Amino acid sequence: MLHITSVAEARPFLRELWSTGQSIGSVHTLGALHDAHGELIQRSANENDQTIVTVYPNRIQLFPGSVYRYDIDTDIALAESRGATIVISSDDQEMYPPTYATFIDQGESHHRLNSSVFDFASRGQVTGAIRWISLCRPTASYFGMKDIEQALLVQRAVQDLMIDCEIRHVPCVRFRGSGVPVSSRLRFLPAGRLAEVGSVYTALETGRNAVLNGESDPGEVISLIRRLLQESLSTFKILYIAAVDVETFAPVSILKEPPFILHCAVTDGDLHHFDGLCIRTPTELAHSPEVIWIDPQDTPS
Amino acid sequence: MLHITSVAEARPFLRELWSTGQSIGSVHTLGALHDAHGELIQRSANENDQTIVTVYPNRIQLFPGSVYRYDIDTDIALAESRGATIVISSDDQEMYPPTYATFIDQGESHHRLNSSVFDFASRGQVTGAIRWISLCRPTASYFGMKDIEQALLVQRAVQDLMIDCEIRHVPCVRFRGSGVPVSSRLRFLPAGRLAEVGSVYTALETGRNAVLNGESDPGEVISLIRRLLQESLSTFKILYIAAVDVETFAPVSILKEPPFILHCAVTDGDLHHFDGLCIRTPTELAHSPEVIWIDPQDTPS
Repeated sequence: MLHITSVAEARPFLRELWSTGQSIGSVHTLGALHDAHGELIQRSANENDQTIVTVYPNRIQLFPGSVYRYDIDTDIALAESRGATIVISSDDQEMYPPTYATFIDQGESHHRLNSSVFDFASRGQVTGAIRWISLCRPTASYFGMKDIEQALLVQRAVQDLMIDCEIRHVPCVRFRGSGVPVSSRLRFLPAGRLAEVGSVYTALETGRNAVLNGESDPGEVISLIRRLLQESLSTFKILYIAAVDVETFAPVSILKEPPFILHCAVTDGDLHHFDGLCIRTPTELAHSPEVIWIDPQDTPS
Repeated sequence: MLHITSVAEARPFLRELWSTGQSIGSVHTLGALHDAHGELIQRSANENDQTIVTVYPNRIQLFPGSVYRYDIDTDIALAESRGATIVISSDDQEMYPPTYATFIDQGESHHRLNSSVFDFASRGQVTGAIRWISLCRPTASYFGMKDIEQALLVQRAVQDLMIDCEIRHVPCVRFRGSGVPVSSRLRFLPAGRLAEVGSVYTALETGRNAVLNGESDPGEVISLIRRLLQESLSTFKILYIAAVDVETFAPVSILKEPPFILHCAVTDGDLHHFDGLCIRTPTELAHSPEVIWIDPQDTPS
């Protein structure tokens, strides 16, 4: 496996790669790779001749001044074990020179859901992803449905900007039993408090079942989710519970037919946890969006 | 020469073209092609195996509700005569479906110079250009220095978004004698009033000469340009005269060393005319930015 440590060095390598006509899959990460990244990488490796993993803790989508802990060698080892053939990394100096000025803007959708808590989040995520996709020109790029907003908005941006790349959405990877999504943010949380985090998924699932059973009033569904969370949360408090449109992320006035998103954010004041169900089809309404279940400490089967 | 009438049809054709490894030059237009477009096309044809001309009056960079008059057959004939090998056209329905949501945002620079008059202009121009560049994946894309903001901001966006395309700036094409830039907006103006428009260029040139001769106070240079324009304009009035930075388009506090831009907008209430000098080197300060001179009714020599 090849590790290229800058965009400048990646450029001539990529031109050579494009000229071979091989299909390219890409997975764009902030580093601190875990099993959910592994799942994206493995799908890409199964479906493409080459798989590029990019590792760069994109400054503009992280809390200003925060330090994102990752170890490039550990990340490279995980990427290689799941089938990556190329890792490209970079740093703030190369990615954000003083003249940097360009952002992808998608209007109100960049101020809703997770971006109603962190107003830079969606703009930073989408801008970061589009930059790496522009650099790599992948045939397909893989995004996990843990970050629903990012997965949908990057797809929207790629279509709108007429970039020739297929965005493939990969189901959320969750721990069997708790339903906790595999996430870099949660990796330092003790097991006891993970159960609390898992109750967010359980509450969202109960909300989905209510819709399935005929409750079409978003206010009622949100109230139900809120009551369940108030019972189960102790160290976390609710930031929002939302039932929204899949295109604009604006609140919907009726919950009947898919598509719609149920989304929730909780915080303990320090850690913020976002979870959601993106329900796009009658099958997803009936059986919940597909999940890749893994056992704690396990790799996916 | 091939005319492809939609993005949907262009996609498989372009994939085939990319696979040949030929170099591609591109010129992105709103239609109503004239000799200045012809100059861009000819440069592209000289420097690349294939030249793609796109023709689409990009709704988001035009005054809302306005009609942009052009004839696709005339445009195709001009494009072909100057060496284009492919013309791609499209329409509002394909380019802006109801779900369209993505814009290129470059902050304050999108609210200065021409965008201080038309606040949608720069965002629309840059978004439009980046979309076509993303679609076509040209080796090089050609932009005229008549529209200084667009030429510089598209270059900034391509670099920032890590798109593998060289933006080549082509000198402004002006009519010999009057100095009037060749422009779609001016094509219906009677000859008598064109002299007035030409005086904008003359005044900017006098400003440049003042800087060359040691005047470093932007306020003094702007006053000089203003006095000259007040003498020469009769049906047009001044909207702004600006001396700005080439990266941010923010006003500069001293005019001494290049780079800087002298820029001016005038209007008769109906027609808006923008002209400017982008002075990037000591040579351009001494001799003015290069101009491609043509005789009225002539093609460039």
